[in-house]
Amino acid sequence: MTTLQHLNTPCALIDIDKMRHNIARMQQRIDSLGASFRPHVKTSKSLPVVQAQLEAGARGITVSTLKEAEEFFEAGIQDILYAVCISPAKLDAVLQLRRRGCDLKIITDSEAAAREIVAYGQAKAHAFEVWIEIDVDGHRSGITPDDDDALIGVASVLHEGAMSIGGVIAHAGSSYDCATPQALLAVAEQERSGTVAAAERLRAAGYSCPVVSIGSTPTALAAESLAGVTEVRAGVYVFFDLVMHNVGVCRPDELALSVLTTVIGHQKTKGWAIVDAGWMAMSRDRGSARQQRDFGYGLVCDEFGKPIDGYLMSGANQEHGIVSLACGVDPDIEQRFPVGSRLRLLPNHACATAAQHPQYQAIESDGSVHAWPRFYGW
Amino acid sequence: MTTLQHLNTPCALIDIDKMRHNIARMQQRIDSLGASFRPHVKTSKSLPVVQAQLEAGARGITVSTLKEAEEFFEAGIQDILYAVCISPAKLDAVLQLRRRGCDLKIITDSEAAAREIVAYGQAKAHAFEVWIEIDVDGHRSGITPDDDDALIGVASVLHEGAMSIGGVIAHAGSSYDCATPQALLAVAEQERSGTVAAAERLRAAGYSCPVVSIGSTPTALAAESLAGVTEVRAGVYVFFDLVMHNVGVCRPDELALSVLTTVIGHQKTKGWAIVDAGWMAMSRDRGSARQQRDFGYGLVCDEFGKPIDGYLMSGANQEHGIVSLACGVDPDIEQRFPVGSRLRLLPNHACATAAQHPQYQAIESDGSVHAWPRFYGW
Repeated sequence: MTTLQHLNTPCALIDIDKMRHNIARMQQRIDSLGASFRPHVKTSKSLPVVQAQLEAGARGITVSTLKEAEEFFEAGIQDILYAVCISPAKLDAVLQLRRRGCDLKIITDSEAAAREIVAYGQAKAHAFEVWIEIDVDGHRSGITPDDDDALIGVASVLHEGAMSIGGVIAHAGSSYDCATPQALLAVAEQERSGTVAAAERLRAAGYSCPVVSIGSTPTALAAESLAGVTEVRAGVYVFFDLVMHNVGVCRPDELALSVLTTVIGHQKTKGWAIVDAGWMAMSRDRGSARQQRDFGYGLVCDEFGKPIDGYLMSGANQEHGIVSLACGVDPDIEQRFPVGSRLRLLPNHACATAAQHPQYQAIESDGSVHAWPRFYGW
Repeated sequence: MTTLQHLNTPCALIDIDKMRHNIARMQQRIDSLGASFRPHVKTSKSLPVVQAQLEAGARGITVSTLKEAEEFFEAGIQDILYAVCISPAKLDAVLQLRRRGCDLKIITDSEAAAREIVAYGQAKAHAFEVWIEIDVDGHRSGITPDDDDALIGVASVLHEGAMSIGGVIAHAGSSYDCATPQALLAVAEQERSGTVAAAERLRAAGYSCPVVSIGSTPTALAAESLAGVTEVRAGVYVFFDLVMHNVGVCRPDELALSVLTTVIGHQKTKGWAIVDAGWMAMSRDRGSARQQRDFGYGLVCDEFGKPIDGYLMSGANQEHGIVSLACGVDPDIEQRFPVGSRLRLLPNHACATAAQHPQYQAIESDGSVHAWPRFYGW
């Protein structure tokens, strides 16, 4: 039986119990609010994780790349939403997947792109299912709910071009900037009401809009009503991370992803322990730097995942991390963390940290460890 | 023949002519200063790149992980320096490589680790070649040149334990913080003189110290003398990047690595074009943010690599990038960069951006493109 002691460092650990707890918490929440749940698999890019989400009740998946769509379709998952506005040059790959039986939905937010979809679809005698992206918070892509001309413009191009309008989709990315339950609740309601309003506007104009899809981890956990919403999406909740902790939607002991590392040296006068996890293992994501509590490159735990009060990963080179007190110099750093001792580091942003690793080491409650594959690229 | 037009986006492009120019420039410089050159392959992790470095005159390679040592040894390279202080648990893997014929050197900076190396080496009846790391600028690991007790302490543990002392090694990482030729020259001389002093101190105490190895891209390009130095190491020079541009050691048209991306939408009132390269394609590295010129997530060029004055990648989500004017709002962004048009993005930090990609698309001067493999992980 492989256990923690056998692992090479640095490596990405998944605490399976915590992951299952996070999956159950989100699924039960969305079930109780009466919507279906479509997890975003960009966080894990790993089949065992996604299987656990589907077994818990998820219906379909959300992907951020066509590579994810291809990998998970190969693994037997048909109902897939590609939640990034389609680039015309990717329609070939989308069509190939759809012709192989993948129920792959694409999204757009402009007449220009809608016309490209129509032109390509008509040339290939194929009706793509297209969802229209709504911008509920000025965060990124999408049509603002009150921009009637743009919304109806896109719908009419798609409809007249004989494409299928599958629904509307929004993501309240600004929820990551919240720090209070009140702020989260307000963004959640803004996401819901704006997206539902866009759907109703489409229906009033005579277009079909069966799906109303919203979501982000913070809003999905904060929403009190999902009236008019048919499905919710969320991704990072499966692992959680320090950014989500600062947003206020998880406790540190709910973080399911960490990086195992080994102490390789010290700078005693500076109070530094140097570890073999640098930014290559943690990513360069410093998401907590602009939040209420800055965790540096990560929160330091013992080998078994228990946080060690006051210590952070305060600096990073490619393959070197600096572990130190957040405030002050620890004169006993060499004795506290001797060369060869192991620590776990909780990451700022699980999606970014996971992406640095070719596989996960998933730990069962009996201490056994299983290598779970992970893919990357486009 | 595959050309730029056939490539899926986002992808990592290498301009082969620029790469060869960068390789020749560095090799000629170190040749003329009378040292040998050992490139750090952590930047590319790609055999065709490393082969070009060796063909130009490099002697041996530097690695940041044992995975790199294993991959490049499999490809026929024997002379390898693992330039991160050894963790005792990795000695098994080092021994396996050495017994297979890999001339793998390890480094340390503490008596504690030296004792572990000796204990393991004696148990296996193997004399590891160990280099001692010197800290010339308070940047990271290493023994300061004037810390006689630590330096002689490590050497004596290794020598009495029958290990081979191969040399001293230093890396002036603080050179990345420089912005003037004078500052660079001063750091380069500090790196040289401190490391040579440590070597001389070892020799005076009766220990062998055949190699004096220093280097970083900025100091290697700034040094006026390498007296007492036997070899120089540098990594990022092979591609260069915007951080190195800000340090003052390359021009924008010498950057050999870029990310090809496609415009997928706009937010007209904000002057945004949204592209399909987010932080997953660029990395979260914002190295230029604390330098004299902040390039956001990257400098925007046309599809053929020509910079477009004034435009940056100003924001990033996982698979979305925001391209906008660095100052002000472009009212014509939709016409300037229509949906489906392609751009190239020059990265802040080549090592970090390259690490996000499973392969490179290497462009020859005739426009043909070759997929060059790249590996990752530990």
